[in-house]
Amino acid sequence: MGLNEMRRVAVVGVGMTTFGEKWESSFRDLIAEAGTNAIIDAGIEGREIDGIFGGTMASGKFIGQEHIGALIADYIGLNPVSSTRVEAACASGGLAFRMGFMAVASGLHNKVVVGGVEKMTDVSGDEATVALGGAGDQEWELFQGVTFPALYALIAKRHMYEYGTTEEQMASVAVKNHSNGAKNKYAQYQREIKVEDVLKSMPVASPLKLLDCSPLTDGAAAAVIVPLDEARKYTDTPIEIIGAGHATDTIALASRDSLTSLKATRVAADYAYKMAKVTPQDIDVCEVHDCFTIAEILAIEDLGFFKKGTGGKATQDGETQIDGKIPINTSGGLKACGHPVGATGVKQIAEIVWQLRGEAKDRQVNNVEIGMTHNIGGSGATCVIHILKRAD
Amino acid sequence: MGLNEMRRVAVVGVGMTTFGEKWESSFRDLIAEAGTNAIIDAGIEGREIDGIFGGTMASGKFIGQEHIGALIADYIGLNPVSSTRVEAACASGGLAFRMGFMAVASGLHNKVVVGGVEKMTDVSGDEATVALGGAGDQEWELFQGVTFPALYALIAKRHMYEYGTTEEQMASVAVKNHSNGAKNKYAQYQREIKVEDVLKSMPVASPLKLLDCSPLTDGAAAAVIVPLDEARKYTDTPIEIIGAGHATDTIALASRDSLTSLKATRVAADYAYKMAKVTPQDIDVCEVHDCFTIAEILAIEDLGFFKKGTGGKATQDGETQIDGKIPINTSGGLKACGHPVGATGVKQIAEIVWQLRGEAKDRQVNNVEIGMTHNIGGSGATCVIHILKRAD
Repeated sequence: MGLNEMRRVAVVGVGMTTFGEKWESSFRDLIAEAGTNAIIDAGIEGREIDGIFGGTMASGKFIGQEHIGALIADYIGLNPVSSTRVEAACASGGLAFRMGFMAVASGLHNKVVVGGVEKMTDVSGDEATVALGGAGDQEWELFQGVTFPALYALIAKRHMYEYGTTEEQMASVAVKNHSNGAKNKYAQYQREIKVEDVLKSMPVASPLKLLDCSPLTDGAAAAVIVPLDEARKYTDTPIEIIGAGHATDTIALASRDSLTSLKATRVAADYAYKMAKVTPQDIDVCEVHDCFTIAEILAIEDLGFFKKGTGGKATQDGETQIDGKIPINTSGGLKACGHPVGATGVKQIAEIVWQLRGEAKDRQVNNVEIGMTHNIGGSGATCVIHILKRAD
Repeated sequence: MGLNEMRRVAVVGVGMTTFGEKWESSFRDLIAEAGTNAIIDAGIEGREIDGIFGGTMASGKFIGQEHIGALIADYIGLNPVSSTRVEAACASGGLAFRMGFMAVASGLHNKVVVGGVEKMTDVSGDEATVALGGAGDQEWELFQGVTFPALYALIAKRHMYEYGTTEEQMASVAVKNHSNGAKNKYAQYQREIKVEDVLKSMPVASPLKLLDCSPLTDGAAAAVIVPLDEARKYTDTPIEIIGAGHATDTIALASRDSLTSLKATRVAADYAYKMAKVTPQDIDVCEVHDCFTIAEILAIEDLGFFKKGTGGKATQDGETQIDGKIPINTSGGLKACGHPVGATGVKQIAEIVWQLRGEAKDRQVNNVEIGMTHNIGGSGATCVIHILKRAD
């Protein structure tokens, strides 16, 4: 048996909560709202669902709760259905989607809901920094005083040194993503910013400033996955999952060959492109993991959209805008839409599904047939990629 | 596509660390040791492995580290291989095994290593109690002062009330499991105890006393899973995974219909028996989740080995001993072998594989062909079951 013999699988429903500081909603409320929205969007009955896959990173630290799979099944009213939590730091949502895909492709499950969720604002900023530090190598990084923005600052410094990338180019990532976020009713920040705003914002870890960084966010997103041959019972526009890649790298940044390219992205993308039988030129729209502005520049280079070292200039030149050569982060990305770490990977799927269905409203890209999601865990120790296509 | 068309899958290698208070070993050391032992046992090359699935419950609380999938791939030297962490409280290991089975059955992966690990003794007992409380419902249970032993004490009290189960009968579970653990070089406690020892041990949450409770433990276990049609390249005795069940229940104990029977066990077992086309009478040896002695009594009833209410008496009568009607927890169970929560589900697999291969030494059950594992998360909100069979 090879990949060709796997059952073909499609997304037939997506849903999410608004992203932001949601003081009025608990972790349970968030996942229930997103899950319900996806189930309603699919027009599927709860009793048809035979599996749940949930991604969340640090619920133990953020809300004192583990055993998240069972909690989700309980709170969306689907117990005793099989429910599995996966964790890969900020790639937890993308990895949950991969498990849902695998579950239906295998035949072990038939119709599943995938959810991603994080409730990050119930703890102090310091506590959140420590919790997020668990995405890196605690023994070799956080315990030595290296916070998460500091890791990406090292990456940014090296990219500037090797390729002449500028702070203005990084700022242009934030400007573009805020422009897109301003068109997205789910986004945490629905306002435009200018390059000067980024440059004069508070330094966090030089050269990264506040507006180079994604925020702390509460939120959830969900998707319904079924076999392709049953998908048209639920929707006229099933979105097939045609490629899936997942790779790892050393968890500590210092152990890697390069700071300016993520091996996990390259390996996962290579696998996903081959599985989907497409090339970077075939991708019409892509959500990438812009936890910091430099991360988007690395991603659009490592995914093959731009030559290594030219991602900053391409962004500055408008090539990744909604009407550009390859529209990146039409949702607003992590930067403007917000980054509830476990939810982000599933929100990326929702955005691509809306784009492929032609439902992205003011952010709609013209003539889209194939879309991609790129979800990173930590400073690049995990990458999860999916390629989706409007079914014929 | 249905279950009949899934690719058949087998275990070809298992390994573990000794279980105990392992002050000299880090989390990383533990998983590397168990993973390496399983890979050596399989005689497989590291470069043949294309996926890792790791189960751990509360690494964020116990060692300040998330992103465990990438960490494992890194420390067993297999990066950039796809590596996924799953979490379902004390059923994390069993659930990781289920994902590994699904991955190979689907064709998305071909040869995978499954690991379970927990490092619990680097924090204080109080901190461990809070971390483990995350397996229950924090909002409705732990925040109100209900610890984990207290939840099982409520279950025990009700079982005693409804069925006349006695403290002596519960003690006989511990006595049997310590007798088995005394024959297992990996066990945390390799000494026999008597019913009187249990009865006079310190009360923890009445009627449960210290020797009714599984301990805090460090340890790891691992297994190698490949397609059945390639299994004989690695071993003369492949162990096929013929049944897999996974179900959930309400996370809070108070929301359930019954305190004396776990719905998640019944639903997961029903699914696994049907998939394997066997009945409880066909099971020759079983590892069940005895986090407390009462939990083993519930399990052997809910799995269909004994009529509801008679599990205590059956244990007292010796029916679950190595030479009894249905040998239960030949490894020593969680009680004597120890309970590193994320590792337990995979250790159960290792024990059943050793039994089915005839390699269980002094604990070997005669004439075993089919074995079963039963792994519980929390107070029963998750149950993961596997049925394994010596391949013809």
